[in-house]
Amino acid sequence: MKKAFPLSEVYRLLEPGPVVLLTTTRAERPNVMPMSWHLMMEFTPPLVGCVVSNRNYSFASLKTDRECVINIPTVDLAKTVVACGNTSGRLVDKFKAFGLTPLAATSVKAPLIAECYASLECKVRDMNLVAKYNFFVLEVVQAWVDVSRKRPRTIHHQGEGEFMVAGRTLHLPSPKTSRGGK
Amino acid sequence: MKKAFPLSEVYRLLEPGPVVLLTTTRAERPNVMPMSWHLMMEFTPPLVGCVVSNRNYSFASLKTDRECVINIPTVDLAKTVVACGNTSGRLVDKFKAFGLTPLAATSVKAPLIAECYASLECKVRDMNLVAKYNFFVLEVVQAWVDVSRKRPRTIHHQGEGEFMVAGRTLHLPSPKTSRGGK
Repeated sequence: MKKAFPLSEVYRLLEPGPVVLLTTTRAERPNVMPMSWHLMMEFTPPLVGCVVSNRNYSFASLKTDRECVINIPTVDLAKTVVACGNTSGRLVDKFKAFGLTPLAATSVKAPLIAECYASLECKVRDMNLVAKYNFFVLEVVQAWVDVSRKRPRTIHHQGEGEFMVAGRTLHLPSPKTSRGGK
Repeated sequence: MKKAFPLSEVYRLLEPGPVVLLTTTRAERPNVMPMSWHLMMEFTPPLVGCVVSNRNYSFASLKTDRECVINIPTVDLAKTVVACGNTSGRLVDKFKAFGLTPLAATSVKAPLIAECYASLECKVRDMNLVAKYNFFVLEVVQAWVDVSRKRPRTIHHQGEGEFMVAGRTLHLPSPKTSRGGK
């Protein structure tokens, strides 16, 4: 069961670099797209930058509706993630085709994916680099996490059909300013 | 021993989201800064976006010299990474203080770090979002990888002193267009 998650902690979900599933809604039909080209840009409010190719079906929706949900899958969904990447939302209703369950979001029209352990409702805040790089700046306005899953095994795309699966956790005293330093 | 690595394959090193060590050279003294807020933006030439806070010593160097090296450390360097994040290059020569070995790069003045398994020489290509977000677009102009290290155990920052260590590799037929789709 997902619960509301503090926005100031969102960086902890995305900073390790997992593959995410981006949901959008175009012409009333939701779509799902795997995405690995994303980064944190600010802690509070949490800003996320991402590249969505203009060849993807999701691009027009993001540009027009200016909202989306970033869902974070775990390794049990790896085959579904790949299937979502190998088909186009132009032709296929991926929620139906791949057995994903859409849940209503609170602040955006795009759905959460029930099977993902975390979902971040986002609004597009800046499109200044869209024309040149297909780069969008999103603001996370509502976050949901299944807090019962203590060590979610996220997947991290390495190209050529390889994914790194999240391994053990190392505890070290690190600086609070995780964007790096100094 | 690091060897020249094809630029078209650089996304495979950064897309999984590892902590990197950014080296810059200011006033002839190189500096080192851990960084997790980065993303791939293009395959060829490889473009990398990153956030470097204007409170960091490296910021002025990146903005003025417009070049840097992205070095990718493995788990054996985790304590050094944290130490580099907890001290400032204003006060400390981190190469000396933490036993890192600088190696001359071929295309930029900033040094490679010998102890890291991969090093990417970069030039700043776009500063349009620096004023608003401290966001730089870099082009990787030369890449070096120690190809003898088959499964480098990269580290991935989760905040609050926690790092995820790269685990097992999953092989699945994935699309070539790893920026996501569709």
